[in-house]
Amino acid sequence: MEKVRVNLGPGYDICIGEGILSGLGPALNEYGLSPKTLLVSNSSVDKLYGDKVSRSLEKAGFTVAREVIPDGEEHKNLQTASRLFDAAAAARLDRRSAVVALGGGVTGDMAGFVAATYLRGLPLVQAPTTLLAQVDSSIGGKVAVNHARGKNLIGAFHQPLLVWSDLETLQTLPYRELLTGLAENIKHGIIADTSLFYYIRDSLAAILAASHASVAEMAARSCRVKVGVVEQDELEQGLRAVLNLGHTFGHAVESVTGYCRYRHGEAVALGIAAASRLSHSLGILPEHDLKEIISLLERAGLPVSGTGLTPGELYEALAYDKKVVAGEIRFVLPVKIGKAEVFQGLQQEDILQAFRTVC
Amino acid sequence: MEKVRVNLGPGYDICIGEGILSGLGPALNEYGLSPKTLLVSNSSVDKLYGDKVSRSLEKAGFTVAREVIPDGEEHKNLQTASRLFDAAAAARLDRRSAVVALGGGVTGDMAGFVAATYLRGLPLVQAPTTLLAQVDSSIGGKVAVNHARGKNLIGAFHQPLLVWSDLETLQTLPYRELLTGLAENIKHGIIADTSLFYYIRDSLAAILAASHASVAEMAARSCRVKVGVVEQDELEQGLRAVLNLGHTFGHAVESVTGYCRYRHGEAVALGIAAASRLSHSLGILPEHDLKEIISLLERAGLPVSGTGLTPGELYEALAYDKKVVAGEIRFVLPVKIGKAEVFQGLQQEDILQAFRTVC
Repeated sequence: MEKVRVNLGPGYDICIGEGILSGLGPALNEYGLSPKTLLVSNSSVDKLYGDKVSRSLEKAGFTVAREVIPDGEEHKNLQTASRLFDAAAAARLDRRSAVVALGGGVTGDMAGFVAATYLRGLPLVQAPTTLLAQVDSSIGGKVAVNHARGKNLIGAFHQPLLVWSDLETLQTLPYRELLTGLAENIKHGIIADTSLFYYIRDSLAAILAASHASVAEMAARSCRVKVGVVEQDELEQGLRAVLNLGHTFGHAVESVTGYCRYRHGEAVALGIAAASRLSHSLGILPEHDLKEIISLLERAGLPVSGTGLTPGELYEALAYDKKVVAGEIRFVLPVKIGKAEVFQGLQQEDILQAFRTVC
Repeated sequence: MEKVRVNLGPGYDICIGEGILSGLGPALNEYGLSPKTLLVSNSSVDKLYGDKVSRSLEKAGFTVAREVIPDGEEHKNLQTASRLFDAAAAARLDRRSAVVALGGGVTGDMAGFVAATYLRGLPLVQAPTTLLAQVDSSIGGKVAVNHARGKNLIGAFHQPLLVWSDLETLQTLPYRELLTGLAENIKHGIIADTSLFYYIRDSLAAILAASHASVAEMAARSCRVKVGVVEQDELEQGLRAVLNLGHTFGHAVESVTGYCRYRHGEAVALGIAAASRLSHSLGILPEHDLKEIISLLERAGLPVSGTGLTPGELYEALAYDKKVVAGEIRFVLPVKIGKAEVFQGLQQEDILQAFRTVC
């Protein structure tokens, strides 16, 4: 088992290993928690791993209230959160009760939001079962639910007590879900780790086959990129914004398509493609790097164009982006493979042009 | 205008003055905020002061989205919060947009919860218009909404940018609301400031007549007690618990009566009475101090007994209290007038006996 230490708040560990889910209960015994816990997962994950995790917790002395939420981004809202608050109250959780999020990004974000706000904050244990959650959403403390007007509009910063990543769960992950996680790994390479980018390029076939060794190597490196960035900027005052590469454009795509048509990582891939082309057309990103980026996304089977949307409707959706401050949108653009920066004061025409490349 | 500095987070000021509401706009110009603001108040407060505050903000260059929530503790829930999230989204607030809470504790708690979670945290301006909010709920960063199973179960710690207390608003405050705030002032005296307690005792007639000088003196001293406690323990790890004197019993009363029959301060008065009698019967609080406490509450017209409830149902309601940790309830008991402490391991019979004195 590999441990990555995160120095935020009191500090916590990301534990990455193969077949470690059944060890979660004993691991939690180290933290002085109350016996009552709330285990949150979605219907598909609960069927696969709910019993295993529940048994592990119970054997370690915990009482487990198990709550299964519906699967899918469209349920990541205040109504579903409200059901989890009901479950927390019915289970009579107290301030040292852990909320365990077993699942992907939606489960982690929702259970995390409930953990951040129930009794003004409960210990949160992230047990991510998707590649996306393992290398991205479970790390860094961002938790949220969507609002009809935009993604993640309601949320908090709430660092977990522990992240417990079992790579074995990737074996049961649908291929499209593996791909959506891959987009974030590629993003981590582009913004901060040239060698990670080329590692993914050179090991793509093995990664797409969910080969343990290749995915483990990629996931651990990718975690370190994210940890390195959030440690320097927990509350997204500056540097952390580079993690949003592809996300400003990508959120607009998700928003216009109602969070249904594209998986998050697919929308991010479209966003990375748009941002990279814009960066190149502004004379920032070299042509060689642009070609490498587009080619890797395409070889991975991720979308880079052809959404059938209009630039105008995508531009309109930007107004609800959290990253808009005082009417000005900040964009993250790749400078080269391995480095991204935040740009302000871009012209509307540039942004429309970037959107046009994915329409 | 008097300023009390609060050294929490980046630090903020509590400004207390007479007729200062119309100066709020210019005051906010110092903070580098976005022009878009959300002004939240309830229907009665909006009628009295909404235009004045709105004009002040607009004259200072802000665009004001005005949202009026229904009056009363029973509306302090996720459903009303959801309306405020809608208003925030419709107004296209950004991360430097202020949420201004104009009103009493319910308005401050609700608008504060929305400010704490919308876009993962917006600047919050508290403009409290009740005595309770001015000396208690607007200070210290606790924000929350109620859950059907208990009060303030869903919330956060979110320190305001500024607290702007206009004592002139107390002139329009219903008498019963003045009383409910008085209970918290008396509490502050009991837990930490002997001379504040006796100041209230000796100036009671003037305070009940809302005499400016007496209320101002009491409010400023009372603020300082609260600020002193929360500065030492922002996240309620220890000392801050003494502020809960009367609140564990009081919340049980409010919960059993559905938050309708008693004003918060009245429930707290019942709780202070119960806690003081329990403390005396355990040999902790001297008889003289018990008599002074009960006598002051009674002279103020606050309830100290006769709820008609049963000790059993009140005891049952305790299980949902946030202050329960690992099944154990911690109680704050007065040790003498001017000092309170947290006690653990009290027997069920003692607690039932304390409840019996208010039944």
